[in-house]
Amino acid sequence: MTALVSPAGPEQPSLRVRRLLLHTQHQPVVVMHTDCHVCRSEGLAARSQVLLTNGARQVHATLFQVDGDAVLSHDEVGLSETAWDLLGVAEGDEVRVSHPPALESLASVRRRIYGHRLDAQALSEIVRDVAAGRYTDVHLAAFLTASAALPLDENETADLTGAMIAVGDRMEWDAPTVVDKHCVGGLPGNRTTPIVVAIVAANGLVMPKTSSRAITSPAGTADTMETLAPVDLDLATLRRVVEAEGGCIAWGGAVHLSPADDIFVRVERELDVDTEGQLIASVLSKKISAGSTHVVIDIPVGPTAKVRGEDAASHLASRITAVASRFGLAATCVQTDGSQPVGRGIGPALEAFDVLAVLQNASDAPDDLRRRAATLAGAALEIGRKAGKGEGTALALETLADGRAWKKFEAICEAQGGLRAPPRAAHVHPLVAPRAGRVVHINNRKLSRLAKLAGAPESKAGGVHMDVRLGDEIDRGQPLLHVHAETTGELAYALDYAARAGDIVEIEA
Amino acid sequence: MTALVSPAGPEQPSLRVRRLLLHTQHQPVVVMHTDCHVCRSEGLAARSQVLLTNGARQVHATLFQVDGDAVLSHDEVGLSETAWDLLGVAEGDEVRVSHPPALESLASVRRRIYGHRLDAQALSEIVRDVAAGRYTDVHLAAFLTASAALPLDENETADLTGAMIAVGDRMEWDAPTVVDKHCVGGLPGNRTTPIVVAIVAANGLVMPKTSSRAITSPAGTADTMETLAPVDLDLATLRRVVEAEGGCIAWGGAVHLSPADDIFVRVERELDVDTEGQLIASVLSKKISAGSTHVVIDIPVGPTAKVRGEDAASHLASRITAVASRFGLAATCVQTDGSQPVGRGIGPALEAFDVLAVLQNASDAPDDLRRRAATLAGAALEIGRKAGKGEGTALALETLADGRAWKKFEAICEAQGGLRAPPRAAHVHPLVAPRAGRVVHINNRKLSRLAKLAGAPESKAGGVHMDVRLGDEIDRGQPLLHVHAETTGELAYALDYAARAGDIVEIEA
Repeated sequence: MTALVSPAGPEQPSLRVRRLLLHTQHQPVVVMHTDCHVCRSEGLAARSQVLLTNGARQVHATLFQVDGDAVLSHDEVGLSETAWDLLGVAEGDEVRVSHPPALESLASVRRRIYGHRLDAQALSEIVRDVAAGRYTDVHLAAFLTASAALPLDENETADLTGAMIAVGDRMEWDAPTVVDKHCVGGLPGNRTTPIVVAIVAANGLVMPKTSSRAITSPAGTADTMETLAPVDLDLATLRRVVEAEGGCIAWGGAVHLSPADDIFVRVERELDVDTEGQLIASVLSKKISAGSTHVVIDIPVGPTAKVRGEDAASHLASRITAVASRFGLAATCVQTDGSQPVGRGIGPALEAFDVLAVLQNASDAPDDLRRRAATLAGAALEIGRKAGKGEGTALALETLADGRAWKKFEAICEAQGGLRAPPRAAHVHPLVAPRAGRVVHINNRKLSRLAKLAGAPESKAGGVHMDVRLGDEIDRGQPLLHVHAETTGELAYALDYAARAGDIVEIEA
Repeated sequence: MTALVSPAGPEQPSLRVRRLLLHTQHQPVVVMHTDCHVCRSEGLAARSQVLLTNGARQVHATLFQVDGDAVLSHDEVGLSETAWDLLGVAEGDEVRVSHPPALESLASVRRRIYGHRLDAQALSEIVRDVAAGRYTDVHLAAFLTASAALPLDENETADLTGAMIAVGDRMEWDAPTVVDKHCVGGLPGNRTTPIVVAIVAANGLVMPKTSSRAITSPAGTADTMETLAPVDLDLATLRRVVEAEGGCIAWGGAVHLSPADDIFVRVERELDVDTEGQLIASVLSKKISAGSTHVVIDIPVGPTAKVRGEDAASHLASRITAVASRFGLAATCVQTDGSQPVGRGIGPALEAFDVLAVLQNASDAPDDLRRRAATLAGAALEIGRKAGKGEGTALALETLADGRAWKKFEAICEAQGGLRAPPRAAHVHPLVAPRAGRVVHINNRKLSRLAKLAGAPESKAGGVHMDVRLGDEIDRGQPLLHVHAETTGELAYALDYAARAGDIVEIEA
């Protein structure tokens, strides 16, 4: 088809970028003036998806529009931090703005919604678009919902895992055996990782552990560890620590092992839907990308834990093992008690004190944390061939008892930048039992909220110290827990919540 | 549980509102400073959902955070237009900001994801939360995906319809028979509504028709009608027009017949997933809320139409009829040809000229538009007992031929504020056939895009005038269509697209 009169086609329109310093998590957002010439000529409305192009770099973003002159002029496009970083622009640069091309991979998402299984090719196209930030929340939620309505089968789970590995960074280690561990679903205070790494590395295995910071919980392993040593290591430092000491306990933020997973996890949390397939692909993609050859998976089972029963735990364990083996990764799953918090501290520094007590063989060290860590470290020692079948836990306990674990932990901390003492809170207040009786239930969800209101994890010393455990017989007026806070304001928030929240610790007369 | 020391609980924190003039469609968005005291004390991060409270009014909003002092100070919260309207605040008012309570209805969404059917109670709780703006895109997409993966059954469809009616405005009419019509899925140029209303009202039936403006198409019925008469009627005016003339053709924006549907539709469009259940609940909830007793549903069937085959059309028709009857609404479905655009014009004014030509019995009136309108009006006359079975179309054609339809249309336009002449475009350019042959395919999607680039629907006179139809034998250089534009810029955009887009009209030698 030919136009009789064909004026030269207009250039794709461009706008000057303006950094808004706007934080939107992973979602690239751009703001344009309602009356800007690009919105008019391209027919862009609020909430359109737009494609921004800066040379070879492109980003799909959600468009909001603004009136008036306070925020933007007509020839500017305002960028959120995510959009700014992805585009790699400098203030005042010109970028082109247009309708994004149709996302071909959405056809696969739609097929999956209607019950058709996806092959490796389809999943890899979906994951590539997700990692590139091209999927909106609507697209992400649709894909995840479809994979929950009709659960991913073993092939799909493996293909999804492979696709997620392909879009992330990879690490490689010059060792035949590289051990890792992971805990499925959070139990407050379940801070076994620093202890496990110390035991395992003390026995000559390589364990380059990277951990996350808290997102919704009062502390992540990286937050806790940071009260004991620097954890924000670049790749070169991390490698140097591992080469010197056989292990590290670092924050994973410097490496992007599974960027697609970071995006999926945010949406799964908002949906509050956990699917086995996504869980497995998430965990295994990170372990495989990190160069692990062996991994121990801690599966806490309990009425308020992520995995509620033994049948579900067994199914999960066998699926994990099967998918892992396709990638040459040996996985061992350990079912543990998920009915109550582990140790006594909830919050970065308070959990660090528990870790120190176990490593230093303190007389008041929490025994549940010691036993859990020994069980997991034992499993790692067995799959790493440092202990015979059934003899790993004993070796782990021995490594703790004879001080080798503590010595290794000190050395790792020194290599990471120096061991330091966790801070102590300025304000500590008890919550006491309103009646005598037996502790019959501890609400993990409310405990987490209480610890966060007390300032954790931003306030390193803030959180909760538990004084009782399930089954304890207690007197009226006896402390159930202590709230730790760095400021009186945070203390007030926490105590106010405790007064309103109903039973956090339930006592039966 | 009691705090030994219990400082007075802090007030829920408040912030001063600031209107950002930010357009985000239906999504309430608020912006707070990263360092603001509420973000810190409540532990709010970017993309948290927050609850804003202004007296008795509350809104759930998505939080973005901003650094620096350019946009907001530390004690301000910036509101998008949707949030501003829902909260009913004035500049400088104080609002409370907190974590929103958990949405109980999401438990039903999760159950639906896992294959459990929902009852009326569960669906009504979901729809209430949706209409109140409490669902994020993630929640909305999950619900819609779950209803696609396992299609809504007849009970669920009826319960969803009832729930959507319950949250919307209702209209009531003092007439035993109130007729309505609806077309499932857009065909470009399918502008039968003004003609049908004129014919039906001329025969003494009541037809208070409200229509939408275009969202993604080059013209909605309200856009087309607006070139002929005012359509932005308040409820009192609308009622006065209908009482005087028996019919109206107004914009539906003044009444919110199905606010939940407006939200669902936006997400379905982004997902590009149409489910039968949502479609039926969407259409019927609006018709029932509008007080209709009888409705004619136009179901275009064709390879690029929403409904692709006769089987799907029959299933849809029987489900519509069954669900409608539960609400005492008599529905008649008419399958029509959905293989090519209807009439010649695509764009508000160009479609209005087609409508005028049919109503005025012009010799060059598009016959397909006349026949479609007569078929649909005939069905309405039959269910409204103004014509015997099988005699409706003849009566409709007669009403057109003898000028009564045109007279009624003139009277309705006068009552709405005065009949006017549609504008004509300043710039008109043909696209010509690159070779001789037969027209074998017309790409409706590309045609719509071309019309929009030419300015439709904002530029009322912009759009496309078709010069050929499927099956026409044409010569090389013969015009296939004419692009109409109000400005040379819009003309250039459209012609540029036409040069790049490949065949819009396909010709086989």
